[in-house]
Amino acid sequence: MEQNLNRFKQRTFQVKSRCALSLLTAKLTMANAELSLKLGRNVILNIYSRIKSIESIREKCKKKGIKPEYTEALEKISDILGIRAVCAFEDDIYRVADILCQHQDVTVIRKKDYVRYPKISGYRSLHLIVEIPVCFQGETSQVRAEIQLRTTAMDFWAGVDHELRYKKGKKEAVLIGNELREYSRVVAELDEKMVELRRQIEII
Amino acid sequence: MEQNLNRFKQRTFQVKSRCALSLLTAKLTMANAELSLKLGRNVILNIYSRIKSIESIREKCKKKGIKPEYTEALEKISDILGIRAVCAFEDDIYRVADILCQHQDVTVIRKKDYVRYPKISGYRSLHLIVEIPVCFQGETSQVRAEIQLRTTAMDFWAGVDHELRYKKGKKEAVLIGNELREYSRVVAELDEKMVELRRQIEII
Amino acid sequence: MEQNLNRFKQRTFQVKSRCALSLLTAKLTMANAELSLKLGRNVILNIYSRIKSIESIREKCKKKGIKPEYTEALEKISDILGIRAVCAFEDDIYRVADILCQHQDVTVIRKKDYVRYPKISGYRSLHLIVEIPVCFQGETSQVRAEIQLRTTAMDFWAGVDHELRYKKGKKEAVLIGNELREYSRVVAELDEKMVELRRQIEII
Amino acid sequence: MEQNLNRFKQRTFQVKSRCALSLLTAKLTMANAELSLKLGRNVILNIYSRIKSIESIREKCKKKGIKPEYTEALEKISDILGIRAVCAFEDDIYRVADILCQHQDVTVIRKKDYVRYPKISGYRSLHLIVEIPVCFQGETSQVRAEIQLRTTAMDFWAGVDHELRYKKGKKEAVLIGNELREYSRVVAELDEKMVELRRQIEII
Repeated sequence: MEQNLNRFKQRTFQVKSRCALSLLTAKLTMANAELSLKLGRNVILNIYSRIKSIESIREKCKKKGIKPEYTEALEKISDILGIRAVCAFEDDIYRVADILCQHQDVTVIRKKDYVRYPKISGYRSLHLIVEIPVCFQGETSQVRAEIQLRTTAMDFWAGVDHELRYKKGKKEAVLIGNELREYSRVVAELDEKMVELRRQIEII
Repeated sequence: MEQNLNRFKQRTFQVKSRCALSLLTAKLTMANAELSLKLGRNVILNIYSRIKSIESIREKCKKKGIKPEYTEALEKISDILGIRAVCAFEDDIYRVADILCQHQDVTVIRKKDYVRYPKISGYRSLHLIVEIPVCFQGETSQVRAEIQLRTTAMDFWAGVDHELRYKKGKKEAVLIGNELREYSRVVAELDEKMVELRRQIEII
Repeated sequence: MEQNLNRFKQRTFQVKSRCALSLLTAKLTMANAELSLKLGRNVILNIYSRIKSIESIREKCKKKGIKPEYTEALEKISDILGIRAVCAFEDDIYRVADILCQHQDVTVIRKKDYVRYPKISGYRSLHLIVEIPVCFQGETSQVRAEIQLRTTAMDFWAGVDHELRYKKGKKEAVLIGNELREYSRVVAELDEKMVELRRQIEII
Repeated sequence: MEQNLNRFKQRTFQVKSRCALSLLTAKLTMANAELSLKLGRNVILNIYSRIKSIESIREKCKKKGIKPEYTEALEKISDILGIRAVCAFEDDIYRVADILCQHQDVTVIRKKDYVRYPKISGYRSLHLIVEIPVCFQGETSQVRAEIQLRTTAMDFWAGVDHELRYKKGKKEAVLIGNELREYSRVVAELDEKMVELRRQIEII
């Protein structure tokens, strides 16, 4: 296992991954430029990207019951490469997603709309699992990544939820989780209301 | 008037201003590094800075009833240079402010706590008017700037409020303004609750 | 004329241009990552990009005897979008060029090797005129750009040569131009020798 | 020994170091802005900074015959924090140094002019050992750093020289070292001549 996953460490993998992330970042920056031109306001506030650590990959393999081997992991864990774009408004999330899907070299493998259909925990975000061609050492291959699109309010909520995950199993964690789920609704209502107010302002 | 304000355009002013902003940005980055080390999480999510345009300076002079002259404007308008640090949590705002005030070369001229005492409009943020020495062409002079510290939720609210300002005077604007003020309270409650939940998570 | 070229000012053109430049910058960054991994040293030291100003476009139209119209200019002036990658060593220039040409979405229109065949002025650089697909408002179109690849020594020389161009016509400029041409040979010899020494070091 | 040097690893040291480097980078950026305004051309092309690795510190302690203890190392090894500014022209090196020395909070401990008095190896650069106050956890302390100022041509030469250092001891290295020393003179002559030509261009 160690041996197999060690391959992830290979700098080749790192370089290819960074290439894929920098191409996707460029595409998100372009989507932002196009939308900002059209709407007269900045649409994407932050773009983050990360490569999952080997420890997290190993853990996820275990959780998913899959062999911790390079090829299997790459196929079955879609968020080894992750990129997150944070927008101010909820409707902008879908605008950014639409533009990304128009790129001829971006293949959308799966779309998970946790904005309209939140997870039981209260988690909300729009996830796109995509593949993008990366040219490396003369060969072009498809690299998979997960794009998370969310509002700042959802991102704030998700940050606290993420902290809670590390304390899972403790009995207090359940109570806090319940309260947090409650506040996911406050966040959703806030996001919705702000879009409504912004639209009213736009037309007066 | 035009002649006097034209001086603002002078590239000298631009260069000195950019120097001041880059020093303050470095200090905020340092505060973030120190707090992140202590608290084990990223504290400042975004740092923005801008130099007020001449048009805005002229407008503000008019509104404040002061002569649109270089020296008077510089003395009486404290936000010609503006820098904004956006934190996830409300209590972090005060942590960042405390560290900034410890710097020997930062003189705090005024502190306006619109977080605890929001403006009538509902606007919330912690404002620090500071002076910082800038060395330019062999001479060191104090340059004034306004630092705005706020949470992402406050920043989101302020963005919509900012849009509304351009439509001021229209009768629909008043109604939207009232609704927006209402939502400032939702934002405040959300910020407060999330700090509470984060603290509970930290101690379990 | 003014009207025709004004279109260059259009923000749409600006946004599409910035998209093309950011994609090409990402591709150069990727080429650098791949080569650095292989060679164990940083290969590209600097990447610059610029969009030609309308004034420069107008001037070039005049010089080339073409109508200063949007479509004609775009077709006949290949360096409206320019991107420059500066390498330490001369042989790395060709390595970077090779990798760029392998990208399936990069079409090389023309290659001008002023490294091996310098201009009469002494100017040296490898120029690639390329086209790259840019997706904007749902439509994909080819955008043309000029990529200049050169060493730091060539870049240094070119900087002085560029200054001289503004003084053209003055009789002293001719004499300085002659001296500068002489020094282009010193630069070429230095670049060549340093590659030789680096190779000797690599094999001992 | 291990225990003492381990302290270098402490994240506190890392954070303080990064603070010092970001302040010095801001000061170099400011010097560049001031000079670019005055001279009408970009003066500093690149700014790099690095923190010496523990391995390198340990090695240097051994070479210098000093105890590998935290306090002694910090006092006797002045380039634990290093920052390098690369200029196009040789005379700009001294301009940048002059501006840095004017800053009230920058204490120049030592100045080593390897530009006018190159090392026997042929190495050329202007070194400033400086101290800068860093405010961390409410306390202000002086942090020492080495600033290297050089031209792109010197930097190119130094890059090859650096590679050679790793092969020291091998007999071929001596021969290459001799040739490299020869080329240090070509670099010096080139730098000198280009300043001369630039000055001639400026006055016509």
